[in-house]
Amino acid sequence: MPIGLHALVRRAHEERVLRALRERGALSRGVIAEQVGLSRTTLSEIISGLLQRGAITVVDTDRDLRTGSGRPAERLALDPASGQFMGVDFGHRRVQVAVADASHEVIASGSDRYADDSSWQHRFTVALDLIDRLGDDSGVRFGALQAIGIGLPGPYPNTVLHGHAGPGSAEDADSAGAAETVFADRFGAAVVVDNNTRFAALAEAIAAHGDSPDDLVYVRLSDGVGGGLVVGGRLVTGATGLAGELGHVTALPGGRGCRCGKRGCLETVASVPAILAECRARGAAVHTLEQLAAAVANGDTTVDSVLTEATDALGRVIAAAAMALNPAGVVVGGRITALAPVLVERVRAVVAADMFPGADAPAVRAARLSDDDGALGALAALFHSSPLLAGYPEPDVAPTHAVQPPR
Amino acid sequence: MPIGLHALVRRAHEERVLRALRERGALSRGVIAEQVGLSRTTLSEIISGLLQRGAITVVDTDRDLRTGSGRPAERLALDPASGQFMGVDFGHRRVQVAVADASHEVIASGSDRYADDSSWQHRFTVALDLIDRLGDDSGVRFGALQAIGIGLPGPYPNTVLHGHAGPGSAEDADSAGAAETVFADRFGAAVVVDNNTRFAALAEAIAAHGDSPDDLVYVRLSDGVGGGLVVGGRLVTGATGLAGELGHVTALPGGRGCRCGKRGCLETVASVPAILAECRARGAAVHTLEQLAAAVANGDTTVDSVLTEATDALGRVIAAAAMALNPAGVVVGGRITALAPVLVERVRAVVAADMFPGADAPAVRAARLSDDDGALGALAALFHSSPLLAGYPEPDVAPTHAVQPPR
Repeated sequence: MPIGLHALVRRAHEERVLRALRERGALSRGVIAEQVGLSRTTLSEIISGLLQRGAITVVDTDRDLRTGSGRPAERLALDPASGQFMGVDFGHRRVQVAVADASHEVIASGSDRYADDSSWQHRFTVALDLIDRLGDDSGVRFGALQAIGIGLPGPYPNTVLHGHAGPGSAEDADSAGAAETVFADRFGAAVVVDNNTRFAALAEAIAAHGDSPDDLVYVRLSDGVGGGLVVGGRLVTGATGLAGELGHVTALPGGRGCRCGKRGCLETVASVPAILAECRARGAAVHTLEQLAAAVANGDTTVDSVLTEATDALGRVIAAAAMALNPAGVVVGGRITALAPVLVERVRAVVAADMFPGADAPAVRAARLSDDDGALGALAALFHSSPLLAGYPEPDVAPTHAVQPPR
Repeated sequence: MPIGLHALVRRAHEERVLRALRERGALSRGVIAEQVGLSRTTLSEIISGLLQRGAITVVDTDRDLRTGSGRPAERLALDPASGQFMGVDFGHRRVQVAVADASHEVIASGSDRYADDSSWQHRFTVALDLIDRLGDDSGVRFGALQAIGIGLPGPYPNTVLHGHAGPGSAEDADSAGAAETVFADRFGAAVVVDNNTRFAALAEAIAAHGDSPDDLVYVRLSDGVGGGLVVGGRLVTGATGLAGELGHVTALPGGRGCRCGKRGCLETVASVPAILAECRARGAAVHTLEQLAAAVANGDTTVDSVLTEATDALGRVIAAAAMALNPAGVVVGGRITALAPVLVERVRAVVAADMFPGADAPAVRAARLSDDDGALGALAALFHSSPLLAGYPEPDVAPTHAVQPPR
């Protein structure tokens, strides 16, 4: 969505006012004007807009703070019930939404499901209904959204990332453009679209705080298998925005057909549906992750052998990536890793066996975040405050960084 | 090699004098003093040193240029026959040396061989003898070396890169330190040590000029199989300096034993000795690359099937790396690619078949450079003038960047 210069400057002003309120709490108009260096006229216009959209609110007057005479001035503050940034993660079968306020705290989140073969229009409707319910249930207003980050699964259905067309049908390739249009129209905010697992990798790397290595391989097992890479302290996109697609590395040459059109992709062996289907094909009555976890706990040998084969394939693919990239850490995400921790243990063993004898194998651990990782990563990309995003396309939703507004 | 502050400052002064002469041609002492902003005393000391080491030479006097009276002043200039920077590439069976003058032109290069099981002490002796011969044959003097870049094969014998210990025996781990000591002692210059195939990848990426993609996978087939990665426009080292070791990705699980200690590494199938040995094991009398090329040209079916198996394995490993990294280009280096171009064609086909259907496969091509790529890459790393080296450890041999000398 192209944004005009006027809108950019207005956003920059808004962001400065919001930052002042975020950092210093409730302030009078006079103090805000001093703090942000805007004329009273410009400031008045900015504040009216923010009040109208519910981003800020009048909290009290400065009566108790004044020592001199004169009429007490109203004090303004951030409305804690107002969403400023929204992250949306469209998976193959569910959408996850997280909304953060101006102080970057998540103030509402939730998810809903749809069928794997749903049209994009249906997925968008499910997402917008979910967002309405989140607003009703939590009292969050979305009148002040600065930006929306949307994660889409890749490469199927395929997405247009950073202006590069991904593989696949024209219909699929339109999903990113369609998402951008639908959300920009609905909320009047700037929209950033990227790969959802890359967003998850970003969230996971940030969640690790100081513990986050400069070189990280992230893999997420869910309805599909996706990945994200951090190399030299930076999140990697690749030449056409497709970097990190470990789910479509060939794990079993000539194996089962994958929805991407190839055969034997890692995803055909190690995605959650693939694991559950293989368990059932071998006679184990396992239809959900919870049933899988119970079967593992009960020592079900059929389920155990399916998991062993999946982790062998996953471990080999991760080991090849680790040999190429020499990361300090490998993170395996997805709810399955919490329910069946044995999976991460086995991957760790396979990776260690496949490294140079004597070399330090990368530390393999389960993700810290859960299924909302993609939505949280989308928020992080909007904030653009992590060094991981150095060299990453700067979203045009952070005008305080990108534009020096006239004083 | 730790360098004292005094030496650093002296080097910085020298580099400024050399740069002035490089940019402006022959100059008198007076003009140099003006140009570089040094006192006559300091300058006199610096110039004496440079003259003594043969880096610069007295070419004429300024008699013809003078309009006033007074004794004509000597003019000094770079000695075009003096090496300033040296790149050394130690392979498993040969050492390659390239020497560049102060204007970064290569003025001498050559190579010599040793047995695969030679001690490091022997390899160093072979290299130093080669350097002596290069000097005698070409009239190049090495008295003015500013820095030496040394590439060593990894991970076997193993090297210490950027302060991180690689895998392997203590003896092996000492090779980098030993190389540093031997060359620093011999030439009195700063020494930088890194992986030789990473140096080759750097040279190849630079040689591609504007054509060089921001995301590149480089693989070199020679006595071993090594690799180097460019991600987001930067040469990648990995967490412990081992990034790019595609030769030790497991290509055939349970396959032949590799010298690294694992089984079925790509190197056991696709290195030049592995290919030649397999041809001979199947009855083809092929002992050299030239004989291999002739057999390919003659349509030898045995040799053809060996090459097919090698390229299948190579293609699969490259495809997995390409799926993870989404590079725009893949470069296959090593003399074998020039002698048997069919190898690159086949790798191209395997990689294309293993990418997403419909996705643009990365462009796969043979390297532009030949066997001196590692030595040239070592020189490039010394110059540190490529954006590919952003974020890369700055060698302490470029003090004009790293140190602001006192005026």
